[in-house]
Amino acid sequence: MVRFGVLGAGRIGQVHAQAIASVKGASFVALAEPVEAVAKQVADEYGCDLRSIDEIAGSDDIDAVVICTPTDTHADLIEQFCKAGKAVFCEKPIDLDIGRVRACLKVVEETDGTLMLGFQRRFDPDFNALRKAIDEGRIGEVEMVTLTSRDPGAPPLDYIDRSGGIFRDMTIHDFDVARWMLGEEVETVYASASVLTDPAIGDHGDYDSANVTMRTATGKHCTITNSRRATYGYDQRIEVHGSTGSVSAENTLEANITVADANGYQRPPTLDFFMTRYTAAYANEIAAFVRSVADGAAPPTTGEDGLRALAMAEAALLSIKEKREVRLDEIL
Amino acid sequence: MVRFGVLGAGRIGQVHAQAIASVKGASFVALAEPVEAVAKQVADEYGCDLRSIDEIAGSDDIDAVVICTPTDTHADLIEQFCKAGKAVFCEKPIDLDIGRVRACLKVVEETDGTLMLGFQRRFDPDFNALRKAIDEGRIGEVEMVTLTSRDPGAPPLDYIDRSGGIFRDMTIHDFDVARWMLGEEVETVYASASVLTDPAIGDHGDYDSANVTMRTATGKHCTITNSRRATYGYDQRIEVHGSTGSVSAENTLEANITVADANGYQRPPTLDFFMTRYTAAYANEIAAFVRSVADGAAPPTTGEDGLRALAMAEAALLSIKEKREVRLDEIL
Amino acid sequence: MVRFGVLGAGRIGQVHAQAIASVKGASFVALAEPVEAVAKQVADEYGCDLRSIDEIAGSDDIDAVVICTPTDTHADLIEQFCKAGKAVFCEKPIDLDIGRVRACLKVVEETDGTLMLGFQRRFDPDFNALRKAIDEGRIGEVEMVTLTSRDPGAPPLDYIDRSGGIFRDMTIHDFDVARWMLGEEVETVYASASVLTDPAIGDHGDYDSANVTMRTATGKHCTITNSRRATYGYDQRIEVHGSTGSVSAENTLEANITVADANGYQRPPTLDFFMTRYTAAYANEIAAFVRSVADGAAPPTTGEDGLRALAMAEAALLSIKEKREVRLDEIL
Amino acid sequence: MVRFGVLGAGRIGQVHAQAIASVKGASFVALAEPVEAVAKQVADEYGCDLRSIDEIAGSDDIDAVVICTPTDTHADLIEQFCKAGKAVFCEKPIDLDIGRVRACLKVVEETDGTLMLGFQRRFDPDFNALRKAIDEGRIGEVEMVTLTSRDPGAPPLDYIDRSGGIFRDMTIHDFDVARWMLGEEVETVYASASVLTDPAIGDHGDYDSANVTMRTATGKHCTITNSRRATYGYDQRIEVHGSTGSVSAENTLEANITVADANGYQRPPTLDFFMTRYTAAYANEIAAFVRSVADGAAPPTTGEDGLRALAMAEAALLSIKEKREVRLDEIL
Repeated sequence: MVRFGVLGAGRIGQVHAQAIASVKGASFVALAEPVEAVAKQVADEYGCDLRSIDEIAGSDDIDAVVICTPTDTHADLIEQFCKAGKAVFCEKPIDLDIGRVRACLKVVEETDGTLMLGFQRRFDPDFNALRKAIDEGRIGEVEMVTLTSRDPGAPPLDYIDRSGGIFRDMTIHDFDVARWMLGEEVETVYASASVLTDPAIGDHGDYDSANVTMRTATGKHCTITNSRRATYGYDQRIEVHGSTGSVSAENTLEANITVADANGYQRPPTLDFFMTRYTAAYANEIAAFVRSVADGAAPPTTGEDGLRALAMAEAALLSIKEKREVRLDEIL
Repeated sequence: MVRFGVLGAGRIGQVHAQAIASVKGASFVALAEPVEAVAKQVADEYGCDLRSIDEIAGSDDIDAVVICTPTDTHADLIEQFCKAGKAVFCEKPIDLDIGRVRACLKVVEETDGTLMLGFQRRFDPDFNALRKAIDEGRIGEVEMVTLTSRDPGAPPLDYIDRSGGIFRDMTIHDFDVARWMLGEEVETVYASASVLTDPAIGDHGDYDSANVTMRTATGKHCTITNSRRATYGYDQRIEVHGSTGSVSAENTLEANITVADANGYQRPPTLDFFMTRYTAAYANEIAAFVRSVADGAAPPTTGEDGLRALAMAEAALLSIKEKREVRLDEIL
Repeated sequence: MVRFGVLGAGRIGQVHAQAIASVKGASFVALAEPVEAVAKQVADEYGCDLRSIDEIAGSDDIDAVVICTPTDTHADLIEQFCKAGKAVFCEKPIDLDIGRVRACLKVVEETDGTLMLGFQRRFDPDFNALRKAIDEGRIGEVEMVTLTSRDPGAPPLDYIDRSGGIFRDMTIHDFDVARWMLGEEVETVYASASVLTDPAIGDHGDYDSANVTMRTATGKHCTITNSRRATYGYDQRIEVHGSTGSVSAENTLEANITVADANGYQRPPTLDFFMTRYTAAYANEIAAFVRSVADGAAPPTTGEDGLRALAMAEAALLSIKEKREVRLDEIL
Repeated sequence: MVRFGVLGAGRIGQVHAQAIASVKGASFVALAEPVEAVAKQVADEYGCDLRSIDEIAGSDDIDAVVICTPTDTHADLIEQFCKAGKAVFCEKPIDLDIGRVRACLKVVEETDGTLMLGFQRRFDPDFNALRKAIDEGRIGEVEMVTLTSRDPGAPPLDYIDRSGGIFRDMTIHDFDVARWMLGEEVETVYASASVLTDPAIGDHGDYDSANVTMRTATGKHCTITNSRRATYGYDQRIEVHGSTGSVSAENTLEANITVADANGYQRPPTLDFFMTRYTAAYANEIAAFVRSVADGAAPPTTGEDGLRALAMAEAALLSIKEKREVRLDEIL
């Protein structure tokens, strides 16, 4: 039984709490949450203790923690809990600064710590079925990966200010999926971005629309298309083109029905919220973490994955600034 | 070169005229059409002669005729032209009276005539691809055929009066497709019908909504669903369920596009007119007739096919009257 | 909090146990299960007590029971627990004999009991989205309901012997859905059936392939197509045709991906097991029961629903025997 | 009646000959074709004269010509026929050299000539339905255009040598579609390409896999994905994302059927040859040319369109060479 402490009971913290409660082989022992009302409600719901972060770090009855606190605390907490000998699951990103990430990963390594980073898309059932089709050789050699990833709407402007911008906040998931699907590291990154949905996003120094093209050493390509606005829901698609075929994962609709009338055939919008869209993925993700802690095995998504995805975001930003292809080894 | 006379230049006559003009190995020599303006216009368009029906029957430069005159003239004309030694293509039905059909087919036989009946669905590319999948063994043994056939709207009431009713006019196409798909004759027919779209149809002694269930001697089933109203276009679908799989032919939409917006995903309606929906089928049908005339081979759809489909319509009507399963051998 | 006793921990019993454990407002207090090993394992998993059926009936800390015992015990247990003042959820059917069902429902009525019958399809998210589209007027007046329901494979022969045959065991779900979708009672029933997948099923007096056509007093139709064999998974589709449009619910596939290669486009089979296919439906069903018990409201599916669906099965059997349309009032 | 001369009766010449023969208001008067056997066969088929190119240029009974000769003759012939006062339809490209194109277009202007360039995709029914959806405001403002265009297989190496490479030969169609869909000119072009399907293509100085990203002055994006290999047929898709929705045009399959079996659901491959895929487009294209000649109106695709698409190809090549974004005004 892996005994859990959860740090932070905001939106994503509660998603993980629910996952821990329902996964076999895991128990939700303690929560640290500064907002008292929220802390009390979650503790009642799951019957867990309320402790401070430091108390959890010092608790003998805690094997692992899930870090769901604000981004700027991630690196410090990872270091603290690795030093305390707890297995750590942390929401991405480790930090917005690549130097800080490197320093943090050094501590993880020195303490022989276990760190899993929250890239939930790797645990989505459809994306896994797609990856499995590739692994089974159904499309031959991977040649081109096309990722379409559009949010239903932009986040609040103050979130944008803290997020590190579209590439570090939103595209970072696509960068990770790109590596997963390509099966090799990208060598070059080109990005182009603009502000099309709301000028205020530009005023805050960010973009809402972006395209990225990446190439590996063997000439494989990946393109990413991002927008902060998709009226038809949360648009999350992958297409991988290979030497003997292609495989694609389509959007999940609100319901699997079709209405036909004088206007034609209508199907419902896609699920429009990342927590609804990725419900199964979040549960599978925690289950994978529990398995790796229980087995003492390396977690499926590591700090190195977080570092590489962040470096790709840096490369994209440099590409936009200098209007050129950037080699990833200029960053890493 | 098969030299054609066309009898009647109404809507369907012009469809066949165009097919003859475009099919290799066929030439459109003469037209018989009582409405002078129409006759002249079609003759100008295709550069064909205008002759009377009797003149065409007596013409040495005519090998084959296409009969597109009103239904109550079909049987007489078939007999006249078989006796005149011309190959005959006739729009279904031969006659609304099954005795008259039998008598006509006897003349065809006695004159060693060539008669092809116009069941254009047998020449539809999608339905043929479906039939081919069955022939290739992709679904194993056929077990259940499901036909959905709905018109965009009801025909005029005076047409209904002359048509012999929904089973002889509309379902007759499905009866023929049922035989084609089942690959064996049906033994029993049950039908249920009602008036749902327009009470006037009931006042004229007909139905607008019908379901038919048929069973063969080996226990295979076919169900037919008909309606005179489908707001989303001309609904023409086939599904064949077999021992190792199923195959279905879907509707053809006005365009192969999808619009996604806040209401979800929208595709255009189906093609909503039988001549648009079956454009390719009508051309293939005449081409098949030309080939059979040129090769002296039996045509792919015969008078016997017309007789059997009509008998199934009779059985459906008797079933409704007596609220029971009717054996086809009660009719034939 | 609704406190539950579960009677029987077989396959479906465990499905309901899991639902009770996860639904808010419900607690799983006691289990009665004769097979000791199974009883112990389930009790360990959910931390519930093990009691006899009679003990559960006499327990003050039990508000409701879920009956998942063999069919021939259902009626007796419903009566026992209604008399004991417990709310009852029972898997369909109440009994294979319609007289016994009537007698049982009389007891439910006399004891003012709460009885919900397990027709899980009414709680399927897609079928509910379809029903909602109808309620919102998106297809106008319902005219024709088409239900396709095919099992991946036949059950064991000894199950068939106990099941009451395909109409009472399998089609009964479709009969219930037909009533739900038509929005009015059927007046006539016609059925046709055969043995196509395995002669042994015929030797045991049952069918494996069936078609049913039903008509309401206002002329609405419903057709049901059943087979015990579908190689592509569990085939569960509904199409409702109305005066201004149609709505359909399609199958749920194993994954939402498509592989394109030299053979064309491939999508995965449908979910092939009723418990996987209806996972969400079973959870929603228990949640609905909990709500109705908590609120003292009538449950959404009642004993009357079970009686009517059974009567439709009886009518289908009589129709096959007498090769005619049967009026439901000949049975009820 | 527009009277046509056709120059060249190769593959595409015969496509256009057939289109001229079937379009109302056009007549196929004369053919110039150096290969005698081909010339004779086509002349027999369509009953047209055989003349030399110069004879056609000097013929009083010719109003318009269709140029289907090798690329390196296009510019000279356009000039010759504009000077001769004939309306000119020419297959793309005008020339592989942008300077030669400019010089040619100057002659067209000075002679007040009519020149339509063969970008047949603009006449595809599905792409037009998509464009119409945009024009009707169904997706709001266009923001991002995604073009996927993959050939079933690479052309012969000697064709590649003459073609000017993938961007001038294949992507050029996408460049034209990009302009059509964006509704404004692109300002920047970035391209990345590699050799993945056959090293011989690289040995001949060309690429087989390419991605292009373009941006307009207002920040709209277009990405193009090309490959010379798609095992599942001829992959031709467009997706346009706008401020209130998205619209996409999907591939046309060989038949509109689905086979379901133990492996899942199978649909046929896409039409795998550009002439089959774009049959309707080629016919509509000639019809549009005939209309513009008959009405004395400007043709829908002009020499300027050809120049701009070629400039985009040049920009792509420069981008690959210099690994940077290229401004189109560096070329034009």
